[in-house]
This record gives sequence, C-alpha cells and structure tokens, in this order.
Amino acid sequence: MKYAIVGTGAIGGYYGAKLVRAGKDVHFLLHSDYNYVCEHGLVINSCDGSFTLPLIQAYDSSSKMPKCDIVIVAMKSTNQSMIPDLIRPLLKDETLVLLIQNGIGLEPDLQVAFPNLHIAAGLAFICSGKTEPGIINHQCYGSINIGNYSCKNDTLLNGLISDFRESGIETNELEYYEARWKKAVWNMPFNGMTVVMNAKTNELLQCNSTRQLIRRQMMEVVNAAHAVGVTSINEDFVEKMIDMTDSMTPYSPSMKLDYDYNRPMEVKYLYSRPLFEASKVECDMPCLRMLEEELLFIESQRGHI
Amino acid sequence: MKYAIVGTGAIGGYYGAKLVRAGKDVHFLLHSDYNYVCEHGLVINSCDGSFTLPLIQAYDSSSKMPKCDIVIVAMKSTNQSMIPDLIRPLLKDETLVLLIQNGIGLEPDLQVAFPNLHIAAGLAFICSGKTEPGIINHQCYGSINIGNYSCKNDTLLNGLISDFRESGIETNELEYYEARWKKAVWNMPFNGMTVVMNAKTNELLQCNSTRQLIRRQMMEVVNAAHAVGVTSINEDFVEKMIDMTDSMTPYSPSMKLDYDYNRPMEVKYLYSRPLFEASKVECDMPCLRMLEEELLFIESQRGHI
Repeated sequence: MKYAIVGTGAIGGYYGAKLVRAGKDVHFLLHSDYNYVCEHGLVINSCDGSFTLPLIQAYDSSSKMPKCDIVIVAMKSTNQSMIPDLIRPLLKDETLVLLIQNGIGLEPDLQVAFPNLHIAAGLAFICSGKTEPGIINHQCYGSINIGNYSCKNDTLLNGLISDFRESGIETNELEYYEARWKKAVWNMPFNGMTVVMNAKTNELLQCNSTRQLIRRQMMEVVNAAHAVGVTSINEDFVEKMIDMTDSMTPYSPSMKLDYDYNRPMEVKYLYSRPLFEASKVECDMPCLRMLEEELLFIESQRGHI
Repeated sequence: MKYAIVGTGAIGGYYGAKLVRAGKDVHFLLHSDYNYVCEHGLVINSCDGSFTLPLIQAYDSSSKMPKCDIVIVAMKSTNQSMIPDLIRPLLKDETLVLLIQNGIGLEPDLQVAFPNLHIAAGLAFICSGKTEPGIINHQCYGSINIGNYSCKNDTLLNGLISDFRESGIETNELEYYEARWKKAVWNMPFNGMTVVMNAKTNELLQCNSTRQLIRRQMMEVVNAAHAVGVTSINEDFVEKMIDMTDSMTPYSPSMKLDYDYNRPMEVKYLYSRPLFEASKVECDMPCLRMLEEELLFIESQRGHI
C-alpha cells in the first residue's frame, strides 16, 4: 500500500517516519520545510529512541505525488478549506483518507467535497512538537485511536491498522463519535486554557481554581457528548484524563505552540464547531463558550481574524 | 461635621478634595504617599477642572486623627480585615462609615466587628486613577450612589448627602442591595476581563466575541441579583451599561491598574463573595465563576496568594 502524508509536522512526520522505518512506501508532502528536509533528512527525537531518515520521498506539491491507497492528513485545521484541492491528486478510485487532526466536524466537512470518499478519524495521543524545520521532538505517548467515519473498504482500513501496528504504533479502533468526543474532553480545556493563562498543563493543575475549572470544562464536554448521543464517556474518564495529565511532563498543547510561534490557532474545529454541534441539541457549554470567545479575542488582537 | 478619608487614593483623594474645596473639615489618612503629599500637596487633574490643595490635614496613622462624624473608607478591599482596627480610633458614639469600595459583602463584614455602627455603601461612578504619589487623574464621570445599609441616624446620612451635593458631587440615594448589585453589573465583567485579556474596555467591546461574552456576564449578575431579591435591575440596564462603556474613553478599570502595577487584585469582594452569595440561593454564574478562577490563577502565578 502506498501512503501519502499530507502535512509533515509533529504528527504526520512522526507517524510517517515510523511507517518508513517499518519498510512502508510513504510519500511526504512538505511545505516550508521542503528544502531543509531534502538536504538534511527528517530527524525524530523521541523518548522511545531517536532516529534520522536521511532520505525520504519528499514533495513540495501534491500534484507531483503518486496516487495513494492511504492519505494521512496531519495538517492544522486552520486552512481546512484547502484540503480538498490538496488531496484530489492523491486519490485513487478507492483511497482511505485518515484525518489525524484535532477537533469536531472535520470528516463531515471533507465528505461534502468527496461524497464517496472513504474517511476515517485518527486521534493521536501523543506529546510531540516541531519547533524547527525537519526536527520533530516526541516527548511521550504515541498511541492512536482510529474511528471509522465512512470507510466501506475493509481491506484499506484493516491494512492501515495492521501497518500501524507493525510500525510499532499502538493502534486501537473506536466508534467514530466516541473517538472524536473523547479526544475533545482533553483538548478543549487544555488547548485554550494554556493559551489564555499563558501556562503549561502542570501549572493549570497545580492551582486549585484552574484545576476545578478544567474539571468543570471536561464535564461540559462529557455532557455535550451525551447530548449528541455519545453515552460511553463518563465522569470516570474525566478523572482519568486529569490523573494522566498530572503524571505528564509539563506540556504545551499544540494550540499553545501555535500561540507561542504566532501561528493561527485552531479555534474553529476545536471550539466553535463542537459548540455549534452541542447547541443544535440544546446543550450549552458555558465555560468552553467563554474560552472560545477569549481565544477569538486573542486572535483578533494578533491579527489572525 | 468632621470627615475622615481612610485611603487617599484615586477615589478617596478625589472626593475628599472636592469636600475640602467646598470648605468642609476633612482629615486624610495616607500611607505610602504621606511624605510626598505633606511636601507637595494633593493634585487633582480633572476633566471638570484641575486643582491643587497645597496643604491638607494629612496623617500617617489613624490613631493621630480626630474622631469624626463621617468616616469614608476608600481603600482597596484587598486588606479588608485591617479596616476595623484602622477606623476604631476615628469612631464617636455616633459615626457614619461610608464604604466607597467595590464589591459585595463589605458592609455585613464590617458590621460583624461593630454591631451598632452606622454603615452605608458608596458606589462611585467615576473613571479615576492614581499612578504616581499625590497625583489623582480624574478622567470622567464622578457621581456617587449612596445605599443605606444600617444607618439609623438621619442627621448624619442627610448631612453627608447634602455636603456631597454642596461639593459639586452628583449624589443619589438608592436602596442598598440595588446599589451594590447594579455596580456589580459593570464591575464583574470589566474588571476581570480587562486583566485576563490584557485589554482596555473599548477593545473588549470592539471584538464581537468578547462583546457578547461581556453582555452574557452582565446578565449573569442581573440573574444573581434577581435570585438574591433585587428585582429592579433588568436587561435594559445591561444595554445601558454597554452603551455607556461604548461612549467612554478607553478605560482600564481599577483591577486592571492593580494588575499593571503588580498590586494584589480585589478578587474576593469583586468575585468570590458575590459568587458565594448567589450560590446560597442556588444561582450559578458560570462565566463569572470561570473569570474568578482565571484571576485566582493569575494571582497565584504573581505570588499574591
């Protein structure tokens, strides 16, 4: 199977490199890092053992890439409207697109552009960042949850899962909506709060007031998930997420890195869209609504809106 | 009538100076500005006409001051537990203490220390700040609402009101709880939000998302006021406050100045106490609760908790 990695950053670069190391045929689309990676290769500094891929199949345009069986989209969702044109040259009659992106609503939006496309969600549980060209720093974790949104081709989906596992990536299959909303339980509080409070995860949890706020925000996501029909997430999961974060290295989530490096933040798919989905079933998330509004204010002050 | 001003800052200094100009007998308690004001006098830079009082009756300790008929407390509420000892030397058998301070719960707390004391609330609608010793900058407004909490001596209360009016201070009498909660409608959103977003009032209102958040936070105060029995505040008042703020010079509320000058913030009486009073009648203020928690996080990061 041929793989395309659309967006060779902290996530796409990491998982793509793992696939390459396991002997898979992987084609990487790069943008700003293209020249650097062609010259220096791709460096993975990882807690599980660092390695360098001196020569990867790198491209600076998707139109130069081969058509692929699996397209892994691992770009920020801040330019999501570009995705259809970007992946169109990569699609065969039967291609599975895996969106390893944060947020709610990504798959339905892509499906509108390609009604018959096989789409799945990839939820990465990974602490990883890219702060300089071609160098990915993988701090901890790395498992991925796969949620099948509209893939009717079992060969592709099962092939993807077994390739991931062969590559040493802990891979689990979850119900799609459960996968997306579970991830939102952690993502919605921590991404925004680290930005607004200009702090790392551990600082937010060490202060009693923000610790209880984070817990309340997580419960808002759980309630919204219930309201949209995902009943398998409960308060125990919230406690598990808090405990897990307590045990993590002090961490800046992707939105905090975007803020620190003055890149646009993924407010739409991480906040506005889940708030909208919840509001459609009369469910309010007051503290996460406020967080969205604070983030939009910051974006407008930074000139990103 | 003898007046004591306890806390000669942006508020106490301004109103005290107006009383002095009208010929009243005013005794000022100063702390950090004492030496400067003794040497240079008190300067009022005011939109209504600036003036200087070269020589005021200034004291560096309340124990050196005469007993007074009216004691105006205009200190920050961040050291509210000091107030009883500070004013004790100033009290006659019949003294009226006017608390020109922000927040909810100040009068009941003081009454615990002096069960028979005459206490009233003073709600200043004024844009005024002190950023250097002995110099008060009065930007705009200046009216005061008086709410009688426990004053059973009409001579004192009416005397105070007529002296204020003689001094050119627009003075209105309001029901106590209405006065306090009306002020909170403006204070609770703007004080905290200007700190958390590091912005002035106009910037918060110019951005659609924070504008709607501010309005929602104001409605939370209105709902809480209703819950505690103050039914005279309604949605029209919220619109009036928004309109008024739109027409104001870009403004940093007192909490923002405290933040900018690294002074402790009045989180307790501006947020924690009204949240507690509302919670006692089963009323939640989710966005203002979150704002309190964000402010407490900032205080803990600044070492003020």
